[in-house]
Amino acid sequence: LNDLELAERIRRGERVALARAITLVESSRAEDRARAAVLLDALLPERDDTTRVAISGPPGAGKSTLIEALGQEVMARGQRIAVLAIDPTSSISGGSILGDKHRMTELAANEQAFVRPSPAGSTLGGIARRTREAMILCEAAGFDVVIIETVGVGQSEVTVKDMVDCFTLVLAPGGGDEIQGMKKGIVEIADLVVVNKADGSLEADATRLAHEYMAAMHIGRHEGERERNVLLTSATERRGVDALWDAIDAVEADLAPVRAELRSEQRVRWFQRSLIADLTERITAAIEGSAGFGQRAERVRQGVESPAAAAAAIADQFTPTIEPPRSPDLSR
Amino acid sequence: LNDLELAERIRRGERVALARAITLVESSRAEDRARAAVLLDALLPERDDTTRVAISGPPGAGKSTLIEALGQEVMARGQRIAVLAIDPTSSISGGSILGDKHRMTELAANEQAFVRPSPAGSTLGGIARRTREAMILCEAAGFDVVIIETVGVGQSEVTVKDMVDCFTLVLAPGGGDEIQGMKKGIVEIADLVVVNKADGSLEADATRLAHEYMAAMHIGRHEGERERNVLLTSATERRGVDALWDAIDAVEADLAPVRAELRSEQRVRWFQRSLIADLTERITAAIEGSAGFGQRAERVRQGVESPAAAAAAIADQFTPTIEPPRSPDLSR
Repeated sequence: LNDLELAERIRRGERVALARAITLVESSRAEDRARAAVLLDALLPERDDTTRVAISGPPGAGKSTLIEALGQEVMARGQRIAVLAIDPTSSISGGSILGDKHRMTELAANEQAFVRPSPAGSTLGGIARRTREAMILCEAAGFDVVIIETVGVGQSEVTVKDMVDCFTLVLAPGGGDEIQGMKKGIVEIADLVVVNKADGSLEADATRLAHEYMAAMHIGRHEGERERNVLLTSATERRGVDALWDAIDAVEADLAPVRAELRSEQRVRWFQRSLIADLTERITAAIEGSAGFGQRAERVRQGVESPAAAAAAIADQFTPTIEPPRSPDLSR
Repeated sequence: LNDLELAERIRRGERVALARAITLVESSRAEDRARAAVLLDALLPERDDTTRVAISGPPGAGKSTLIEALGQEVMARGQRIAVLAIDPTSSISGGSILGDKHRMTELAANEQAFVRPSPAGSTLGGIARRTREAMILCEAAGFDVVIIETVGVGQSEVTVKDMVDCFTLVLAPGGGDEIQGMKKGIVEIADLVVVNKADGSLEADATRLAHEYMAAMHIGRHEGERERNVLLTSATERRGVDALWDAIDAVEADLAPVRAELRSEQRVRWFQRSLIADLTERITAAIEGSAGFGQRAERVRQGVESPAAAAAAIADQFTPTIEPPRSPDLSR
């Protein structure tokens, strides 16, 4: 099966072809990377008519349950949904944890939905380096809505924000001081904040938390900026889920006049990220095979040179060799 | 004040000099990086007689309160303690969140302790790129115990594990499915697991959780490997804290015969990480100024070439020019 045939089968919406293509783009083998580039080029242009949503938040906020409920809502509205869950634990254990569990069972069983855990990837490639490519494949296969689920706080969220239209932060009562401390960061990146678990004994706490975030987001708002929404949901009781999807739709509608431009800019940033990651991998491999690296490493091992000084010395030597080619061959 | 004088003042244990030096190693300015390398070289060899502990875990597990209690325990045993708290939110907001809060007030007020939030750093440098260097500075200033506090799951923990002797995972009841899903990962990297909040209405849940982790760690144990401990604590009621420090001491004692070798290996890996980070920064700067990059970026913007294909094409062109220098100047 060559890559152009694979592209054709993805366009026809064949799930087996889609799953195989995602495995291909996630591979780090040089041969597979080349094939993935051919495949992604064959599927151009990227679709501009899809809805791309990130669902992010700390462990225990109920993200998976909320996505399951959102999925039902999306399908009831006649759209097909793909969920890519970035699995933060895969980099530790080498295997996917999320894949082991019975998550999103309703969605996974439905022909109108596609659920796939996505490994967080190596240090070199950064977080979810391949998740954006998997998203493009899902869209090409006819999924109108793609949800990217991420766990955690910090840098990974900044990266994920750059591949979606609507970044949704999900919180729940009881997260403690550190989650409260995230407020400042949230104001800068979240398009929507959802306080989940607004049910049973947590309902009052959830309501109070939602008001706190509303105040924080109002204070942090820049002049001329749209007022961002804070919503209350109970994923387990499926309350507030329709209002959440309406809010996501409203963010998409606001974005409509500039969406093509936003996505063009995002593509360019992903090109830059991919290039930096590719070059760093190649240069690192070249350096690690060099005698100079081995000699420096031995000095660091013996403790006579600091890691920082040794790294700077080698990096200084390599820098001048990085020059753009004089006549880049753009036909490739 | 030159860097050798700064090194001398750190060795004398001057807190102001230590704080200034940490600011220097955290700086990303090229000039400061060069000065930091000189400073770190002047403080060689790194101490081999210190205790390096990571306290890691999800938001809301009570890590800060536990560290405050551990700090009192350590000082009661006649040792000086430094705490470096990696702040995951600083990469989003640009400012430090932890620094805003009244955390570890007892420790911060004590002459035998030093508390400092450490920014998580940019994408380029990776997580806590400078935290290891700050730790080396604290040790040079006479702190016998260094605790690194980290939030979150995934890649950051693997990085932090590589700068400590004892990686301690702190959990609390009620974290939900995702935290349970971490078990597989924990078995591979944690030297100790602490279930905190074993008090009041959570005590029974905490006890049950501790038993679950004990079983999981027992099952995941490799042949010949030491049985790893699971401890119950109540940081707020200061129960189990002395036993936790005894357990950390026991891990250190087990490590004693091989500690110098472990730290040599860690240093070499940090050299490698630093080199990759330094190269990535330089590559990024070189790319952004090049004409070839701009031309490709325009094609990606227009949607006629995929980010992956464009990145691979440029990376392929650069590869042949990457050669190690023939005679590396090791005197630098």
